[in-house]
Amino acid sequence: MTHGVHSRLAKQCLGTALNGARNMALIVQKYGGTSVGDVDRIKNVAKRIQKTREEGHSLVIVVSARSGVTNELIARAKAINDRPDTREMDMLLAIGEQETIALTAMALHAIGIPAVSYTGAQAGISTDRVFTKAKIQQINPKPILADLKAGKVVIVAGFQGINDEGQITTLGRGGSDLTAIALAAACKADKCEIYTDVDGVYTADPRIVKNAKKIEEISYDEMLELASLGSKVMQSRSVEFAKKYGVVFEVRSSFNHNPGTIVKEEVAYMEKVVVRGVALDKDQAKVVISNLPDKPSSAATIFKALADASINVDMIVQNVAHTGGVDLTFTVQRDDAANAVKVLPDVLKKLGGGEVKAFDNIAKLSVVGVGMRTHAGVAATLFTALGEAGINIQLIGTSEIKITVAVDRSRADQAQQAAHDVFGLGN
Amino acid sequence: MTHGVHSRLAKQCLGTALNGARNMALIVQKYGGTSVGDVDRIKNVAKRIQKTREEGHSLVIVVSARSGVTNELIARAKAINDRPDTREMDMLLAIGEQETIALTAMALHAIGIPAVSYTGAQAGISTDRVFTKAKIQQINPKPILADLKAGKVVIVAGFQGINDEGQITTLGRGGSDLTAIALAAACKADKCEIYTDVDGVYTADPRIVKNAKKIEEISYDEMLELASLGSKVMQSRSVEFAKKYGVVFEVRSSFNHNPGTIVKEEVAYMEKVVVRGVALDKDQAKVVISNLPDKPSSAATIFKALADASINVDMIVQNVAHTGGVDLTFTVQRDDAANAVKVLPDVLKKLGGGEVKAFDNIAKLSVVGVGMRTHAGVAATLFTALGEAGINIQLIGTSEIKITVAVDRSRADQAQQAAHDVFGLGN
Repeated sequence: MTHGVHSRLAKQCLGTALNGARNMALIVQKYGGTSVGDVDRIKNVAKRIQKTREEGHSLVIVVSARSGVTNELIARAKAINDRPDTREMDMLLAIGEQETIALTAMALHAIGIPAVSYTGAQAGISTDRVFTKAKIQQINPKPILADLKAGKVVIVAGFQGINDEGQITTLGRGGSDLTAIALAAACKADKCEIYTDVDGVYTADPRIVKNAKKIEEISYDEMLELASLGSKVMQSRSVEFAKKYGVVFEVRSSFNHNPGTIVKEEVAYMEKVVVRGVALDKDQAKVVISNLPDKPSSAATIFKALADASINVDMIVQNVAHTGGVDLTFTVQRDDAANAVKVLPDVLKKLGGGEVKAFDNIAKLSVVGVGMRTHAGVAATLFTALGEAGINIQLIGTSEIKITVAVDRSRADQAQQAAHDVFGLGN
Repeated sequence: MTHGVHSRLAKQCLGTALNGARNMALIVQKYGGTSVGDVDRIKNVAKRIQKTREEGHSLVIVVSARSGVTNELIARAKAINDRPDTREMDMLLAIGEQETIALTAMALHAIGIPAVSYTGAQAGISTDRVFTKAKIQQINPKPILADLKAGKVVIVAGFQGINDEGQITTLGRGGSDLTAIALAAACKADKCEIYTDVDGVYTADPRIVKNAKKIEEISYDEMLELASLGSKVMQSRSVEFAKKYGVVFEVRSSFNHNPGTIVKEEVAYMEKVVVRGVALDKDQAKVVISNLPDKPSSAATIFKALADASINVDMIVQNVAHTGGVDLTFTVQRDDAANAVKVLPDVLKKLGGGEVKAFDNIAKLSVVGVGMRTHAGVAATLFTALGEAGINIQLIGTSEIKITVAVDRSRADQAQQAAHDVFGLGN
C-alpha cells in the first residue's frame, strides 16, 4: 500500500503530534452525504472537527457529496444520454465531493481552523482504469502528511481517485468509506471514524426489534457478514480493506455524541459470545427449477447463464426429486427474479427439460457470530425457536460464522425477534 | 506560448485533417453559460457541433458553467464563510465547468459522435498562482491534439487551469473566452468561434439605435475599445490575448445561424471606414474637485488614494480655475462614486484644501474606428452633431482610435443615435 518513505513520513508526523502534552493521535474521520447535506450540517461537521482538534489530535477528513447531489447529477446525465459513457460519468460525479471539500474547508476557516481541501487526485489516490467502480491501487500520503505537519486539517474528497492516464475515476458504492479506510492505512492513522446517520451496528434492526442493542466491538468477519446481509451500515469492500490492512475503525453518528461500534480484528470477549447479531434482508426472491435432467453439467450451465445476465445468486440448494429429475432452488435479489425467469427457459431447453418458478416473497435471516465456530447447537437452537414461532424455513445455508435461513417475507420480523430473543441479544 | 513539439503536432494534426476531400480545418468553439444553460440547450450545442463536424472540421469545444450555477456556488460559499479563501473558492467554482464538459460529451455520444472531456488541468492549461484571477502561462496541447487526431471532439472546461503546485485555479471574469482564445493559439487552430447570446458586435446598441448594423469584420483595437467601453460582448483581456497571438475569432449567437462579427488584425476596407461603431456606458459618475491647491503632487496624491481604495478612474480633465486653485474632474463607475466621496476629504485636508462633489447621472459615449487615425475632423463632426441635438458635452477624452464624451445620462440614447447617424453607420 505505502512505500517506505511514506511510513517514515507518517511516523515523523505522529512524532510531532506526540510532542505535545496530551495523548495526541492522527484520526481519519469520514462524513457521509446526510452529515454534510446542507450549509448548516457542514457547519456542524466543522464544530465536531474543532472539538476533536481541541483535544490535540491531527485530522484527515473525508467527505461525501451532499445527499441528493449525486442522484441529481445522474438524472441530468440520463436526460442527455440514457447510457452515459462511464469515463464521463466519473468526470461528472466527482464534482459532488469536490463541492463538499471546498465548503467544509471554508466552514473550518470561518471558525479559525487552518484547513486545506484535496481532490482524490491531489490526495495521491491512484486507482485502476475501471471507471465507476475503480479499485484503489496506491496512495501517496506525502502531501497530506506535510499539511498535517504544518498544523492544517486536511479535507479529502471521498469516492474518487485518478488512474495512471490522469483520468478521474470513482470508486463505486461505499467509495467514501473506502477512501477513509485506505487513507487511514496509508497515513498510519491511529483511528478511523466513519460518521453516518446511524450510531453504530445493532444486534438486530432497532426499528423492528425494540430491545436491539448497540454492539460496542465487533470483529471484521462478523461485520462483513452483517454488512453483506443487509445491515447496510457499510459496504463489504471497505470492511475487507480494513481487515486486510488492520485498520481499526468506529462507526458512529454525526447527529449525536454517542459512542459507536468499534470494528477490529480481535474482540476481547469473543470466546464467550456465541452469536453477535441478527441480520435481515427482505428484498429476496426464490427461484425453483424442478425436474432438471440429472446431468453433471446442468447446474454449471444454469449458473453461467445467470452470471452472463449479471444476476447474482446467493443461497443454493439441490436435491434429487422423487420424480427422478433434480430440483434446484436458489435465492436472488428481488429485482433480479423476473430477469432470471426470462433467461432460464432457453437454457433448460438446451439441457433437455425442467420448469422454472419464481417466488418473490422471500426474506433472508442470518445469525452471525465468530463464537459459533466452536459452539455446537447454534443451528438447532435457531431452528427450534423459529419452529416454536410457527415459522416455516424454506432454505438453509451455513458458513463458519453464520447461519442463514430463507423464510416468507410476511413472517420475517417475527423471525428476527425470535432469533434475537433465543440468543439473548437484547437489553 | 507553445513549444516546437506542439507546433509540429498541430501541423501533423491539420495535415491529417487536410488529407480529406473538403476544406478541413481545426476550429475552436466556445459556448457560454446561457448556451449550455440546461439539458435541452446542451443537446442543441451537440447538434451544432455535429453540423460543423459533418463539414469535415476538427473541433475543440470550450464550455462555461451552466448559467446560474456559478452564482449558486458563490451563494453557498458565502452562507458558510463571508470571506471564503480564494484557493477553496477556485476548488469550488471549477466544478461548474466540470459538470458541463461531462454533460456535453454525453450529449455528443448520444448522437454518435466520439468526444472526450478535459478539465483545465487535463488540457494542460498552466497558470500562475493567483487564485480567482489566474493568468495563463502556458498550454501543452499534446493530449488534445492526440485525441483530435484520433477523430474525437475535445471538450475543455473553460475558466480554469492548474498552477505549478497542482492547485486548481480559475481565470476570473471572461475566463472561458480566454480559454478558447488561448487554446486556439496553442493548437494553431484555423478559427475560433465565441458563441454567446448576442449575434455579433453592432455599430451601436440595437435595443436603442433601431438602425444599428452588425459589423462583419472589426480589428482587435476597435474591438478592445468597444469592449472596454460597454459593448460587453467580451472582456478586454481575451481580445488582448487574441491580438498578441494573432488568433482570428468570430463572435456569434448559439441561438441562430446568422454570421457573426469576425475580429482580426487587419480589416480589408479599414482605410475607407472612419468610424466603426458607437459605444455607450450609462453607469458612470463624475467627481469634481474644485479649488485644489496648485501643487505638483496634488493629482498624484489623489489618484494614489483612489487606487488604494480600489476605485478605477477613467477620464480625467484638469484646468486652472478662475479662483486661483485647480479644478480636477474625473469619471468613475457609478458604484464607486460614493466611496470616492468618502475617501477624498481626508486627502484634501492633507493637501491643504479643495471641495469634492459627485454627480452620478453621467453616461460615456465613444465613437471608435481605426480609420480616424488618418482622418481629420471626426471630433468636430461629433461635437457638431451633439450640439445640433442640444446635448451638452461635459468632458472630452481622445485616443488614436476613439473619441469619448461624457454627457448627461438622460440624453445618452439621443446622443448615441445622433453619433450613429452622423457617421452613416446605420442600415
